[in-house]
Amino acid sequence: MTREADFSAWYQQLISEADLAEESGVRGCMVMRPWGYGIWERVQFLMDQRIKATGHENCYFPLFIPLSYFAKEAEHVDGFAKEMAVVTHHRLMKDDKDGLVVDPEAKLEEPLVVRPTSETVIGTSFSKWVQSWRDLPVMINQWANVVRWEMRTRMFLRTSEFLWQEGHTAHATRDEAMEETLDILEMYRSFSEEVLAMPVVAGEKPENERFPGADATYSIEAMMQDGKALQAGTSHFLGQTFSKAQNIRFQDKEGQFQFAYTTSWGTSTRLIGGVIMTHGDDDGLRVPPLIAPYQVVIIPMLRDKPEDEEVLNFCTALTKQIAGLRAFDENVRVKLDKSGAKASNKRWAWVKKGAPLILEIGPRDVAEGNVSALRRDALYKDNGKLDSQILAKDAFADQVPALLEEIQSKLHGEAKQRLDSNITRGLTDFVEVQKFYKENKKYPGWLEVQWCRATGEELDQIEERLKKLKLTFRNVPQEAAAVDGNCIFTGKPAVERILIGKAY
Amino acid sequence: MTREADFSAWYQQLISEADLAEESGVRGCMVMRPWGYGIWERVQFLMDQRIKATGHENCYFPLFIPLSYFAKEAEHVDGFAKEMAVVTHHRLMKDDKDGLVVDPEAKLEEPLVVRPTSETVIGTSFSKWVQSWRDLPVMINQWANVVRWEMRTRMFLRTSEFLWQEGHTAHATRDEAMEETLDILEMYRSFSEEVLAMPVVAGEKPENERFPGADATYSIEAMMQDGKALQAGTSHFLGQTFSKAQNIRFQDKEGQFQFAYTTSWGTSTRLIGGVIMTHGDDDGLRVPPLIAPYQVVIIPMLRDKPEDEEVLNFCTALTKQIAGLRAFDENVRVKLDKSGAKASNKRWAWVKKGAPLILEIGPRDVAEGNVSALRRDALYKDNGKLDSQILAKDAFADQVPALLEEIQSKLHGEAKQRLDSNITRGLTDFVEVQKFYKENKKYPGWLEVQWCRATGEELDQIEERLKKLKLTFRNVPQEAAAVDGNCIFTGKPAVERILIGKAY
Repeated sequence: MTREADFSAWYQQLISEADLAEESGVRGCMVMRPWGYGIWERVQFLMDQRIKATGHENCYFPLFIPLSYFAKEAEHVDGFAKEMAVVTHHRLMKDDKDGLVVDPEAKLEEPLVVRPTSETVIGTSFSKWVQSWRDLPVMINQWANVVRWEMRTRMFLRTSEFLWQEGHTAHATRDEAMEETLDILEMYRSFSEEVLAMPVVAGEKPENERFPGADATYSIEAMMQDGKALQAGTSHFLGQTFSKAQNIRFQDKEGQFQFAYTTSWGTSTRLIGGVIMTHGDDDGLRVPPLIAPYQVVIIPMLRDKPEDEEVLNFCTALTKQIAGLRAFDENVRVKLDKSGAKASNKRWAWVKKGAPLILEIGPRDVAEGNVSALRRDALYKDNGKLDSQILAKDAFADQVPALLEEIQSKLHGEAKQRLDSNITRGLTDFVEVQKFYKENKKYPGWLEVQWCRATGEELDQIEERLKKLKLTFRNVPQEAAAVDGNCIFTGKPAVERILIGKAY
Repeated sequence: MTREADFSAWYQQLISEADLAEESGVRGCMVMRPWGYGIWERVQFLMDQRIKATGHENCYFPLFIPLSYFAKEAEHVDGFAKEMAVVTHHRLMKDDKDGLVVDPEAKLEEPLVVRPTSETVIGTSFSKWVQSWRDLPVMINQWANVVRWEMRTRMFLRTSEFLWQEGHTAHATRDEAMEETLDILEMYRSFSEEVLAMPVVAGEKPENERFPGADATYSIEAMMQDGKALQAGTSHFLGQTFSKAQNIRFQDKEGQFQFAYTTSWGTSTRLIGGVIMTHGDDDGLRVPPLIAPYQVVIIPMLRDKPEDEEVLNFCTALTKQIAGLRAFDENVRVKLDKSGAKASNKRWAWVKKGAPLILEIGPRDVAEGNVSALRRDALYKDNGKLDSQILAKDAFADQVPALLEEIQSKLHGEAKQRLDSNITRGLTDFVEVQKFYKENKKYPGWLEVQWCRATGEELDQIEERLKKLKLTFRNVPQEAAAVDGNCIFTGKPAVERILIGKAY
């Protein structure tokens, strides 16, 4: 399956063939297999460092949230009530026919919601922790599973249960909370670019795309290879909405009681969907070296012959040599694949998984002290043949750190080039937008247009017009140029530039 | 509160004052606060290395398990059915009075159980993954939250939701699966001793204490300071029970279909309860350096005076110096506590938390190039005064790695001495056991007795007799001496030695 033929089918097939995940048999939930989970572990490890380096501490809050906690904040519950998994009973029993059923006697007094996000339960703790200005700021994060009962699911992008990190902070002043919101947005942006090699546009969402209950929502938006947008992380300025609902109150230096200003922000296993649709090619995934569970894979070409032992010894020594190298300030992660499969099958398995460097070592290589190396980001020569390079072992090993850094940078560069060249600017009214999408059905990319920052009903009407073209607002890029015209929707003077596109 | 006065109240108070966890307001669920969760992160990090080093890969399986999955294995469901949280609906709605209720229209076709353990859902994946002998062994692990609807909960020891790792493996032969079961038991034993500094006895559980559905269950048992036992980890040999229920079948080298042999094994946040009750003293927790989120805490003694800046500069330089040191093959984890609290309050906060080394730095120390250092494992001099040692800065820094290793080893040694000296041997009939417990009410410790390895009804009767003394079997120590007498319960020839004690 190629991206060109059917992007969506290509995506599903890649996930299966690259050993990333599979359907679980449980509605909307997937099983993350070792390679997919290994990428998530790398994302966790590297993002956790950035979260902690900016003064946040990890905690863990309950999976279950009493229904009454949601009742406190009307807008928030409206946003989530339709997709909540609810625990109502705490016991099973055998029925007359020895079948297993829910025990009707074991009904909970108050139903428990499986957390779709944790503002309400974490806010309850904050209200206990925060009494004085001395207790602020509170800056915490948790790595957890959450559940949103989505009707249409797609692996990594939209699953009923998913893994994520959610940061929650409380501050004494509006300015400090807004600074935190934007600092996190910048952390997400730089993480996405530097670690995932996935270029994004950071900016504010219009009112209709805000998190339920938020005063402002910011996002990073990545462009997938089919030109659609993926919202890859969000950072919310919650103002005093949640602190008032949950009584997060403190005495300021003058002894006056004030409500705190709070923020929340999250990224999830959805990032892996973004990595796939950013870096995958028709041979499978290409994992950026920084998040590759193994950066170098060594495949001994064994033939059930006496010389196998020498090949294995050579490969074992090489594995140790490479494991001692440093790239990106960490030891290089190298795997010696001794599994029983045929060497050529192993090669293709690792190509599909997207290991950055794949080495094949046979008796001749051993005799000559060489390695045969494939770069996953540059598999083929111009003539279409595999570009397997034969290099002296030590010369190759010396190059590994630089090669990995080059691959990381090259993957980012390719994607950046795609993003930059697929944002169309300069359309001046909505008729042009309609025309543009008619003429560029296959690969429209995004539009950046000037608009009036509509709200309320006016925004609803614009949303309806976009919906007919299957478009949504993405965000108002922080880096956009100044305005110099009118709103393409209303004709009023423009206030800012905003991105429009199809989205996941 | 002292351990002597009320061990249980001491435990609760320590958890609160050491910033480990707190009640959440959600029945039976706790909030893990930064210091408590930080210890868990260290446990995860160090155990994960051992799990991976022995060839296991991490995956992630669904939180929800369809009710029908449990119906397949009768004994297993009997063991868990009484304490399961069950999701029955997927939506909330507003009622007539604008209150929030479960939407009766949104009832699930099949109820979903929140996983109490994942044998059934992981077995379903294994049955897909395993087709041929070439696919074996399958060796996976997951870090996850699980829920067991416990009626009486206690923080870390027994909570409705808890965090754990669960390993699951499938093998071609009985021997290989048994070897895995015992290898993991040994991994748990050495991890507990070396990392948690918590000595344990590893051995097999009698039939009545097996995991529901297991052919054999092994455990590590630790002795708390009140002489009670804590089951700190279990490793189960599941034979073919689960593979038959879930159809985990493969073609062997001869082309015959065989059922695989499976194992499962787990440790949880309960380990932190064990660490508290092993190493806590009347001043709070003492965290073994290997799992301390910070191993060295530096408290600048600030007085809102001009010399504060010099103190802070000195402390910042010292923090960097110590962060560059290596102990236990990692960089030393050091925290400069610049928070606004009074220096003496900070000192006691870190004593309660149990940071291994606590430094206080005032202007005089800076002038003289000294540090004032407290060792958390040896807080007081013989005369009862705080043993704060004044040392030249560089001389102290040079010692840090060795000091940390010494503290780790000393905590283990103290606990080992307690375990070894509180196992009573040599009682030859049950009347003596009754007498022993009458005479040693306050601190009986454990008994190691000879027995006939009873099963079935005979074992039930023995269990009843023990229950009257509030005793349970712990395990049959791997290292126990050979038998040389009769079963103290039945008078039959003894087959093995078994531990008896009160337990958490």
